[in-house]
Amino acid sequence: MAEGRFDFRVTAKDKVTRARCGVINTPHGECETPLFMPVATLASVKAMRPDEVRGLGFDMVLANAYHLMLRPGVDVVEGAGGLHAFMRWGGPILTDSGGYQVLSLGRDVRITEEGASFRSHQDGGSVFLSPEACMQLQGRLGADIIMALDECLPYPSDRDRVERSLRLNHDWALRCRESHTDGRQALFGIIQGGMYADLRARAARMIVELGFPGYGLGGLSVGEPRDLTLELVSETLAHVPEHAPVYLMGVGDPLGIGESVALGVDMFDSTLPTRIARNGSALVDGGRINLRNARFTTDDGPLEPSCECYACSNFSRAYIRHLVVSKEILGLYLLTGHNLHKLSCLMSGIREAIATGCYTEFLNRLKRMGSGLES
Amino acid sequence: MAEGRFDFRVTAKDKVTRARCGVINTPHGECETPLFMPVATLASVKAMRPDEVRGLGFDMVLANAYHLMLRPGVDVVEGAGGLHAFMRWGGPILTDSGGYQVLSLGRDVRITEEGASFRSHQDGGSVFLSPEACMQLQGRLGADIIMALDECLPYPSDRDRVERSLRLNHDWALRCRESHTDGRQALFGIIQGGMYADLRARAARMIVELGFPGYGLGGLSVGEPRDLTLELVSETLAHVPEHAPVYLMGVGDPLGIGESVALGVDMFDSTLPTRIARNGSALVDGGRINLRNARFTTDDGPLEPSCECYACSNFSRAYIRHLVVSKEILGLYLLTGHNLHKLSCLMSGIREAIATGCYTEFLNRLKRMGSGLES
Repeated sequence: MAEGRFDFRVTAKDKVTRARCGVINTPHGECETPLFMPVATLASVKAMRPDEVRGLGFDMVLANAYHLMLRPGVDVVEGAGGLHAFMRWGGPILTDSGGYQVLSLGRDVRITEEGASFRSHQDGGSVFLSPEACMQLQGRLGADIIMALDECLPYPSDRDRVERSLRLNHDWALRCRESHTDGRQALFGIIQGGMYADLRARAARMIVELGFPGYGLGGLSVGEPRDLTLELVSETLAHVPEHAPVYLMGVGDPLGIGESVALGVDMFDSTLPTRIARNGSALVDGGRINLRNARFTTDDGPLEPSCECYACSNFSRAYIRHLVVSKEILGLYLLTGHNLHKLSCLMSGIREAIATGCYTEFLNRLKRMGSGLES
Repeated sequence: MAEGRFDFRVTAKDKVTRARCGVINTPHGECETPLFMPVATLASVKAMRPDEVRGLGFDMVLANAYHLMLRPGVDVVEGAGGLHAFMRWGGPILTDSGGYQVLSLGRDVRITEEGASFRSHQDGGSVFLSPEACMQLQGRLGADIIMALDECLPYPSDRDRVERSLRLNHDWALRCRESHTDGRQALFGIIQGGMYADLRARAARMIVELGFPGYGLGGLSVGEPRDLTLELVSETLAHVPEHAPVYLMGVGDPLGIGESVALGVDMFDSTLPTRIARNGSALVDGGRINLRNARFTTDDGPLEPSCECYACSNFSRAYIRHLVVSKEILGLYLLTGHNLHKLSCLMSGIREAIATGCYTEFLNRLKRMGSGLES
């Protein structure tokens, strides 16, 4: 499967915005950017077969090093020949470092210069994650792109706290870079900086100075207003070299993706399409509908008339509502497939609009439709 | 889709046993017998797409009139154009009458000559199911084969109780036949009789005398020893005319199916393959394995080496165990697909063995492998 090492080349640039198309090359094949990565937390995109995820038009998936470390454990994944073989995903994989999960899921978290110690949310066992241990963990999982260990701060965090964290994140990023030796894996640095534009800029300069083949923007889309997210992304990207792909971590709503692409973001991941599916919601143009709503009880139309996904080609809202209300697994499956199809269409629409020089029109249409954040 | 009315013709007979091959014709196409119907309780075979169920080799599915009456309600299904359109199953469908569910799920059940009154297990609402109401319900759902309303007795029930029930079942069967007017639906009678061979024989004569195009054997495989089940099936079938298909309700273990086919049974249904999948179990030749067992943690082999299903062609026991332990939906899906594939292979193996005159050898091999009932 080795198709060479990691690289990124820009293939088209929008003339008005900073949107761009590119190609990421990895040992497991190429991906066109801007791209969205479905989340396979525990080495499975929830409710989907890997060949279906691929068939829906996704080239790369994200898995969580933190979760996999706890279950089934890195020994099991490594023993199976690594993550690609274990989960039967032949394309590129990105693993995140676990910094975010330590913050959000760990118990008794204690961060020192040395690393993060915490108790597992699974069995309460003590875990210690240093930058070096994180690189070893992700090395053994074997993803194509791995992320530096970062300290994620809660939102909101005061300026002093964020400022102190910049140095720690710089030092951890450096230690990650130094202990990362597997040339087949691309290590991305992560830029933090809380909700302070100048600290984001400073963090960007500090991390970029270390030199990584790509950069993650962490700690955003955690509850702050969308305008602020975009302002901070814009401020950060002014300090990131154009030749490196930029990955906005955790953003998955259609308008948020569209607006971030206009600022120069190349990669996205989010549990949104799969998570809201399990909650009974379908993405539709400009928003979402929740099939639990009684108004769908006898609705014989598809989830969305213009959609060509398997669910919309075959089943009525009434049937899918019945499945959701009855907790039938097929309901989760149909909604997950539909939502991922919507994201896939969005990304191919974005790439096509950039390549054909009409990204501004595309984005304006997306804005007119609405945010897709509300029900 | 109308391919004529219901009929059944025998196409091959085993020379040693009473096993036979046949073809059931329905308004939604033909099915070869002996056949197994996956159970789509709420108009969905749990965790499977309808096109996958068909692709696995099943021609007919079973849905539960009782469950569908309570959720989503017959109005919704009828409004969608009936069960076939609602669940997008183009092939034949059989609905059961609800007699068994009244016994097993209903609260405050009261059986009178008139019918069964009980409280819904969903919302506690009062429901009354008479033979006439049951025919109307199944008529509106629109299955190809429908079942007469029967009184199911708990196991064990004493002889007097069973004997009294014979008359009621006869009267209800007669009323079902008289109120059933849709010639596109075939109405099967149900033969009960508890665990008493002579009462089974008497029930068979009483129900057969009314004249139905097919017969269900109800109230078996409810906890009694397998030898007794087979003895009662054999005793019953001595009184059922050869031209009618016989459906042994609720039997789904491979050896039970094989042995019943040898007695002349043509149709089976059971939640077994889908239910044990959701419990983490995979059918393998001669038994089953539970993937929760720690011995599979690093097992890189497939569920079953000789199996050609999607799960076995792609994934290791270690990965599937990880999915099951992590409650990932893909785990249920892979095990369900595997178990249904095993049942499908069993049925096609049975049909081929009968057609080629070697059913005794086939059954002996099945017996040597074991019952498939234990773990």
